[in-house]
Amino acid sequence: MSIGQSKQRLDAEAKVTGRARYTDDLGMPGMRHAAYVRSPIAHGLVKAVDASAALALTGVDAVFTAADVPDILFPTAGHPYSIYPDHGDVADVKILTDHVRFHGDGVALVVAKDALTARKAAALVKVDYEELPVLTSAETALAEGAPLLHPEINPKSNVLGEHAFEVGGGGGGHTYAQGIADADVVVDGAYTTPTMQHCHLENQTAYAYMDDMKHIVVVSSTQIPHICRRVVGQALGIPWARVRVIKPYIGGGFGNKQDVILEPVVAFLTLKMGGIPVSLDLTREECMLATRVRHAFAMKAQIGIKKDGTITAYSLDALSNTGAYASHGHSIAAAGGSKVCYVYPHAVYRFSAKTYYSNIPVGGACRGYGSPQTAFAIECLMEDAARAIGMDPLEFRLKNVGRPGDISPLNGKPIATLGIGECLEKGRDVFGWTDRKAACAAFNKEAAKTGSPLRRGVGISAFSYGSGTYPINVEGGSARLILNQDGTVHLMTGATEIGQGADTTFAQMVSETLGIAFESIHVVSTQDTDVTPWDTSAYASRQTYTAGPAVYEASETLRRKILDYAGLMTGHSPAALMVRGDAVVFVRAPETVVISLRDLAMDAYYNRDRGGQITAEASTKTRQNPPSFGACFTEIEVDLELCKVNIREIINIHDAGIIINPALATGQVHGGMAMGIGWALYEELLVDEKTGRVYNNNLLDYKFPTACDIPDLGCAFVQTREPSGPYGSKALGEPPLISPAPALRNAMLDATGVAVNDIPMTPKTLFRAFKAAGVL
Amino acid sequence: MSIGQSKQRLDAEAKVTGRARYTDDLGMPGMRHAAYVRSPIAHGLVKAVDASAALALTGVDAVFTAADVPDILFPTAGHPYSIYPDHGDVADVKILTDHVRFHGDGVALVVAKDALTARKAAALVKVDYEELPVLTSAETALAEGAPLLHPEINPKSNVLGEHAFEVGGGGGGHTYAQGIADADVVVDGAYTTPTMQHCHLENQTAYAYMDDMKHIVVVSSTQIPHICRRVVGQALGIPWARVRVIKPYIGGGFGNKQDVILEPVVAFLTLKMGGIPVSLDLTREECMLATRVRHAFAMKAQIGIKKDGTITAYSLDALSNTGAYASHGHSIAAAGGSKVCYVYPHAVYRFSAKTYYSNIPVGGACRGYGSPQTAFAIECLMEDAARAIGMDPLEFRLKNVGRPGDISPLNGKPIATLGIGECLEKGRDVFGWTDRKAACAAFNKEAAKTGSPLRRGVGISAFSYGSGTYPINVEGGSARLILNQDGTVHLMTGATEIGQGADTTFAQMVSETLGIAFESIHVVSTQDTDVTPWDTSAYASRQTYTAGPAVYEASETLRRKILDYAGLMTGHSPAALMVRGDAVVFVRAPETVVISLRDLAMDAYYNRDRGGQITAEASTKTRQNPPSFGACFTEIEVDLELCKVNIREIINIHDAGIIINPALATGQVHGGMAMGIGWALYEELLVDEKTGRVYNNNLLDYKFPTACDIPDLGCAFVQTREPSGPYGSKALGEPPLISPAPALRNAMLDATGVAVNDIPMTPKTLFRAFKAAGVL
Repeated sequence: MSIGQSKQRLDAEAKVTGRARYTDDLGMPGMRHAAYVRSPIAHGLVKAVDASAALALTGVDAVFTAADVPDILFPTAGHPYSIYPDHGDVADVKILTDHVRFHGDGVALVVAKDALTARKAAALVKVDYEELPVLTSAETALAEGAPLLHPEINPKSNVLGEHAFEVGGGGGGHTYAQGIADADVVVDGAYTTPTMQHCHLENQTAYAYMDDMKHIVVVSSTQIPHICRRVVGQALGIPWARVRVIKPYIGGGFGNKQDVILEPVVAFLTLKMGGIPVSLDLTREECMLATRVRHAFAMKAQIGIKKDGTITAYSLDALSNTGAYASHGHSIAAAGGSKVCYVYPHAVYRFSAKTYYSNIPVGGACRGYGSPQTAFAIECLMEDAARAIGMDPLEFRLKNVGRPGDISPLNGKPIATLGIGECLEKGRDVFGWTDRKAACAAFNKEAAKTGSPLRRGVGISAFSYGSGTYPINVEGGSARLILNQDGTVHLMTGATEIGQGADTTFAQMVSETLGIAFESIHVVSTQDTDVTPWDTSAYASRQTYTAGPAVYEASETLRRKILDYAGLMTGHSPAALMVRGDAVVFVRAPETVVISLRDLAMDAYYNRDRGGQITAEASTKTRQNPPSFGACFTEIEVDLELCKVNIREIINIHDAGIIINPALATGQVHGGMAMGIGWALYEELLVDEKTGRVYNNNLLDYKFPTACDIPDLGCAFVQTREPSGPYGSKALGEPPLISPAPALRNAMLDATGVAVNDIPMTPKTLFRAFKAAGVL
Repeated sequence: MSIGQSKQRLDAEAKVTGRARYTDDLGMPGMRHAAYVRSPIAHGLVKAVDASAALALTGVDAVFTAADVPDILFPTAGHPYSIYPDHGDVADVKILTDHVRFHGDGVALVVAKDALTARKAAALVKVDYEELPVLTSAETALAEGAPLLHPEINPKSNVLGEHAFEVGGGGGGHTYAQGIADADVVVDGAYTTPTMQHCHLENQTAYAYMDDMKHIVVVSSTQIPHICRRVVGQALGIPWARVRVIKPYIGGGFGNKQDVILEPVVAFLTLKMGGIPVSLDLTREECMLATRVRHAFAMKAQIGIKKDGTITAYSLDALSNTGAYASHGHSIAAAGGSKVCYVYPHAVYRFSAKTYYSNIPVGGACRGYGSPQTAFAIECLMEDAARAIGMDPLEFRLKNVGRPGDISPLNGKPIATLGIGECLEKGRDVFGWTDRKAACAAFNKEAAKTGSPLRRGVGISAFSYGSGTYPINVEGGSARLILNQDGTVHLMTGATEIGQGADTTFAQMVSETLGIAFESIHVVSTQDTDVTPWDTSAYASRQTYTAGPAVYEASETLRRKILDYAGLMTGHSPAALMVRGDAVVFVRAPETVVISLRDLAMDAYYNRDRGGQITAEASTKTRQNPPSFGACFTEIEVDLELCKVNIREIINIHDAGIIINPALATGQVHGGMAMGIGWALYEELLVDEKTGRVYNNNLLDYKFPTACDIPDLGCAFVQTREPSGPYGSKALGEPPLISPAPALRNAMLDATGVAVNDIPMTPKTLFRAFKAAGVL
């Protein structure tokens, strides 16, 4: 009925007219406001806090320090929770600290009658610090004798986690060393990627109060209400069911709201304040400084290839800087190392990674979750390898990519939908690879002749990603449907709308399976963990795939209940009935209306002698994790003198299975590509290497691309039909971000002959690279 | 595990500490406030409204009149809704009117930045009225040629409804006329009962806003959120599912909040204001004037008895004044006529009633719903009959009351639990009827001798009531249970906590059936019609009985799911397992813990390869309506000169089936008796017969009894085991109010020889009665 149609997103009108209410549009009478006292230094011990001036300010209720908070280390990562002893999140955070580990660390909290007073008072709190050596780089943080940032986690060094694995080779039992030995050519590379800040429109904000039953209610701009509930319970040391998290619409998250940062704080504050509502609403500057950033990676890569272009083995060694706290910890490097390895499944793949603590802002989940970093290195490496044997980079990739039915390097099972080859082929046609490539070469020849500083080049990249986190984490989805008196239905899911259009997609699924008109479905968009079915929510590009089975099962159950009731009312065999639009119809030709859904519902509710409210609920677990694929094709023009990149064309082609809603899917791709371009060309949170001070935690100095900086974005899909889910879909949320950076770097290499292995490719980076390469 | 125990009510601490949040404790940022312009006359037509002065006031947003509201007549009665054409509520109300029908009718609404400004502005709105004849009594309202108040409902007269029926006689086919002919003595009586106002602590209050999806959200102090949703939908002419009603804790209702009065108004206002939150918070004076009152009844009764005390037939003809609008309409007189007839099922019973419109405040549901009025007449009549043949009134009743297995006069089926005889016998013993009666007679003899103005007397009354409204209305209950990660459960029901302790009772039911500790059950007390399972909620003393089956079924389903999962985890046969406290145990001796509920829940949520969230939901219909019974025993002392009554002892004995929570049940009885005493001795909303002006719509002039006026209240139960419900309970919410008034009147007759057939027995009434009887 509805799958595959570009239905208008349910929240479109509310959001474009400004009617949509977000956390800060709610609030409560009598609410107090909190502000942080943040550390101005990156590493040190709090020796004394003098809050007397702050407390003397009219309207200030209280000042809390590390001495007041529960003596509980808790994890902030938005993971489901693990019951397995070998796998759990790192608990290294307290609500406030007296050992500051980054510039912006939370030392105290002021609560006052309004936010302005709270901020004024926070500025009056005097804190004495004993400064400690600041570790910002791998060299300093991992040096022998470096001060330990989290001895409770690692008493020996600042290493948070490390692991290595070797897979692939088509099941032939080859080792990496054999693969390299078999190669005709071995190419090495070293690549670095920067931090980036998510820059969601709505800053982190939350408020909490104690309800009538002394439960702690937290209203928050979070991607993960059910996980948030669990972490708040852990952080306060109270039963999880005593915590209730409510999630209204949120103004973007991109992984930064997959971390539980403010919620334990406001929960703590309302507990201390006797249940009065307390709000904590970060400024943009705080949000950029003291929430999360994408991990900066330093990577070394190696590849062995035959002269005919066959990859025998490739490897990646990644060093990830998590900053002051673990947050998602080593998971991001680990996930980045795994999810990218479906593209070239025939070669042996070796991966190792190490994540370390340092005194820079905290690395956390950021759209792509490690894969943008690893894919950047691998796709640069592939480019370099192709060039090393003089092979067209597209042909090189097409020779090596997996095809449907190939064996997964990770679990040894066939990959049913493996569309990377199709993506590359479609991209070749849509983009006009051969012609553009030739045209760029001709242009450059002419430019060199005329002395023009302009160069053009084409670049490509490929990647894979996962549709969730199984088998690392549990993958659960739940949904509940209610047939209303007027024949419409309400849908509740624990899967969250975070701007990506999830609600609309789920409504389309209900329409498809139940048979009811899309317009008759109302999605209860706000999650409330007291009543909303459980789901771990929006991250890992999982929701469409992992909540889909629950939505399907609930819809199917409701459908059967409706048809049974129609049978009871009308005497028809339910087997000969179906729901179509707003009625139950008899399925044999000519199709006739048996009863309207409204009349059926009214009878179920109001008949004195039969019926009841018709609802359906399902909670499912997903034990598959089919990879998504994609490729990027771009043509750029570089001004060598201005060190400036102009994107002439950029197209992403995705295999995300069946596309539920093409318009929304296209929106996801556009958004992801824009973020990917920002990461490739513009963005980096700059930290002073010596002091750990952050230079540009604001939107003036942090060079976030605007609409003017982003070119028209191309998008196409290769629709495979993933058989492991009821709607044939796979991940699409994060993947579009992955591919632009390596494609742009490869186009730069094509245009200029310069391999820019350190992004972002800002004019500053390019100037240095062009200088070093002698093209400037 | 839990049934029959006096568990502390779940909301006790929140309510006594003031932490509990009610509608006015919530609110929203940017909320505007509305105030009514109310008619100062009782009957007339609005000729012109001049709002210019009001609109000129700073802070005033808008003024709306009858010209602005939807041209839709809607019903306000809190009934479930009827799909049967012969039975529906009377739709005679618009959101504002230009034909005012009582003093206080709503003519216009002002919306302003705060409540004070709104009220100031309302006072500035000039309204020109054309006055019409004011009809306050049956004589004037039903007179030939009287102006018609609702020609759209009845184009011929001001009669809203009338009906008559004749039942009983033990199935012997006797008619009423035969019964009277068979009698040795026939006694006639005429009785009147007054209006009363509910005087709930929290005045009527509600606010509404339009949500992101243009749904109308109403937060209201209502007893009936799901019904409220339906009526708002009807009043605005929008699909019901577009309305969402949220009910926080409420500060009392007693039937007045079983009427949908403010909710359509605030819904209309927010619609007109583009979705901005608008609040309407009535003052006490408005609440007493312009919400609802108990219907005043004028009744004629007749009884035929044999010399041995056998009742052959009795009848009641009731005239009910509904005032300006139908509200619950003729239902209240009809219910009052039916529910009382289970006490004396062997006699023929004839009932007729007529309800008429007039220009007085609107009659609506008020604890007891017509039965206090009819029981007053019948129990006065019984007293008079016993005295007419010189029989002890208790012996007279015991001779005539039904016994278990007697045939219901209404549906011809046996009444399984019929404890009225037991109630009377228990009361005789507890109260010491014979001794007290004799002591009073001796006291009076001595008083007459000494010239003391004090007289003492004893009185009794009996009554029956229904456990819901079946088969008049549908009786549905629904419940949903969620097993939390920490092994506790959340319970959602559409049945509402309105101060009576419903949440606590439902938790006890869950504990009983599921086997889990009472302390591990959290009731989601706030109803939200978008997600809360459907129930028509708190009225008709129905909830414990009609929601019980849904709570039972959901608990039983959850229990089975938990045991099945425990079996899956541990290998035990679920048949050998049970839930006990916080664990699943093996049932054979010695009982051993198989797994804790927490560990089981954690596995169900977080095991990667099995499980899911464990929930259970049930929606049930109840097709039984077992009568409850009760009796009141009282001894009073009357000061003939001061015309003042002093209650020396008053005890209610109830057959409400199994008592789930004795402390809460006792609280219900105490509250009901106090209201009954208020109605018997103090309360009446006074209306000027000529102008229809209300004299005493405030708590200074309306003589509401305080703690000082209410004596110690006695309470005892006769516990029958009602077999038609899973927990053996029957109605108890309203019944305690029914019995005090006739018992006090009969005690007055015993003490003074004066039959006071018109209540309240205020000093004014007593002075007139004593004068007329010559005792003063």
